[in-house]
Amino acid sequence: MSFDPSCPVPAPDGPLVTLAHGGGGRAMHRLLAEHIGPSVGDGALRHDGAVVDVVRDGGRLAVTTDSFVVTPLFFPGGDIGKLAVYGTVNDLVATGAEPRVLTLGLILEEGLPLATLDRVLASIRSAADEAGVRVATGDTKVVERGKGDGVFINTTGLGEVPSSVEIGAWKVREGDAVLVSGDVGRHGMAVLSVRESLGFATPIESDCGSLLPNWRALQAANVVPSCMRDCTRGGLAASVVEIGGAADVDIVLDEGSIPVDPGVRAACEILGLDAVHLACEGRMVVFARAEDADTALAALKSVEPSAARIGTVTEGTGRVWLRDAYGGERLLDLPLGEALPRIC
Amino acid sequence: MSFDPSCPVPAPDGPLVTLAHGGGGRAMHRLLAEHIGPSVGDGALRHDGAVVDVVRDGGRLAVTTDSFVVTPLFFPGGDIGKLAVYGTVNDLVATGAEPRVLTLGLILEEGLPLATLDRVLASIRSAADEAGVRVATGDTKVVERGKGDGVFINTTGLGEVPSSVEIGAWKVREGDAVLVSGDVGRHGMAVLSVRESLGFATPIESDCGSLLPNWRALQAANVVPSCMRDCTRGGLAASVVEIGGAADVDIVLDEGSIPVDPGVRAACEILGLDAVHLACEGRMVVFARAEDADTALAALKSVEPSAARIGTVTEGTGRVWLRDAYGGERLLDLPLGEALPRIC
Repeated sequence: MSFDPSCPVPAPDGPLVTLAHGGGGRAMHRLLAEHIGPSVGDGALRHDGAVVDVVRDGGRLAVTTDSFVVTPLFFPGGDIGKLAVYGTVNDLVATGAEPRVLTLGLILEEGLPLATLDRVLASIRSAADEAGVRVATGDTKVVERGKGDGVFINTTGLGEVPSSVEIGAWKVREGDAVLVSGDVGRHGMAVLSVRESLGFATPIESDCGSLLPNWRALQAANVVPSCMRDCTRGGLAASVVEIGGAADVDIVLDEGSIPVDPGVRAACEILGLDAVHLACEGRMVVFARAEDADTALAALKSVEPSAARIGTVTEGTGRVWLRDAYGGERLLDLPLGEALPRIC
Repeated sequence: MSFDPSCPVPAPDGPLVTLAHGGGGRAMHRLLAEHIGPSVGDGALRHDGAVVDVVRDGGRLAVTTDSFVVTPLFFPGGDIGKLAVYGTVNDLVATGAEPRVLTLGLILEEGLPLATLDRVLASIRSAADEAGVRVATGDTKVVERGKGDGVFINTTGLGEVPSSVEIGAWKVREGDAVLVSGDVGRHGMAVLSVRESLGFATPIESDCGSLLPNWRALQAANVVPSCMRDCTRGGLAASVVEIGGAADVDIVLDEGSIPVDPGVRAACEILGLDAVHLACEGRMVVFARAEDADTALAALKSVEPSAARIGTVTEGTGRVWLRDAYGGERLLDLPLGEALPRIC
């Protein structure tokens, strides 16, 4: 479900979420039976747990959890539902897992229009279908007006890591190539643009999406990366800095090779922001052995043409260097917080 | 961590949670390294997923998810942290699973005293240790002041259902005995008492606790229940009504045999509430074959002396009858909402 300014969030003149919807009584059962079940599937009706089939092929069980508090709920290129599903799917992908099952925890604010909830639920279903995962169990709570903010979503994802796959920061070595699966910073700038009502000539859409096709393309090309990490809060910079620290290597990024959409670049210049620190929600950084770099890049480009090789791992102590066009290098560090709170 | 009126929630003069703590930058890393990790364990530091070992003995994987929004955060007999861990452990127990792994999703409100967070985290750790589960992965988000309410917690639980165990509403048959693992309604009344500042002669403590010992006692006695269900929102009534409906049988409960603490009973009479509708957080209803009923009851009583046999399954169409001391019967139904919102 993409952002359509002609179809804004429904005005709250239809039925609203009430505290009774979270009480465990008939109102809650009706919310489940009439809204959550039909949209998301019967699994979401199971509020008491489920027995699931995740590890089918002798692999290992991967688990990841994320809460989503993005504001606004709908933004150009996505919404909180799509974000929740793909965010969790992408975390599983980054461990090398085949995503299989999601859980869905909803915290609703009293007064939320049910029509808004329905839009979010439809978006969850559509994203889950696309990623081939199903919601196996759920939970729904309601808090009083002013004690929440519309919808908060927790998704926990379960997947299977094939026994042949071992991916993680500890596998990163000197000489590895650093690639990124597409242009960076679009999610952060898209959310900022609606939050601050910035009118760009060309609207900037979030990159919110699944990284499963990118991972499948790498697998099809027989590339086993040393490490993959989806770039979310803190952007590309946070992912690379964390991996550098964990692997105890230095990483040199070539600033000019980092793909940034021209609209995002222009907006960053106006606002004094750096795209490498802006959140992505459908991009990952991939570390591959030097001899696999060309194959890996071709595989990533087959899914997203803006994918690029952006740097190299060198001997070191966990620092990340950004090399500019003139050969100058500066240390890339994490900011204290994040320019944009509640980006995911 | 039980409620101690002489030790109230710390006044917010120490350090507070800020939006930067949720931004993915250095402030968040410090929150993780200095508060969450030391309290809950290193697993909670993993914000990108983990490979976990859950199914060890050839059983099936059980998953359950719950969000906790209870207010106040601390109440007589427990707090939101203990509630989150045991609530999820108890959901796993009700599927017949051995609880193994939890995920921990925190949604913090800007301005929350870090000392309060630390108390909740310590309580999570202590409950997890007692139940023999570990936090394998986590996520932390911060929302602006007035967009949350202190702390919301999502816990997703993973466990292993032994291949010999099959428990569920579909196994319930005519003639089954209905047992409850202890006196009902204490959690609801305990939360109500602090929320409404009701001064009872004897303070009512929540039953918030793990049902693992009760399940182990049943297993040790070689009882395989047809169905178990922890009683939370909606109390004993909601659990029994749901199982009756799912199993398509009638259930007759003997009102006089339902164990209710005298303090809870007195408070219910004053307030016009019915203890069977009040939330529990450490009680479950157990359905067992008639021939196992005495053994099952003895096992449950060995853990909690107030356990009782409260009814029988009869042929029917999913209705639950409450039989009073004079032989009169009335239909037990779910209320529309719940007398007490945000009870868990």
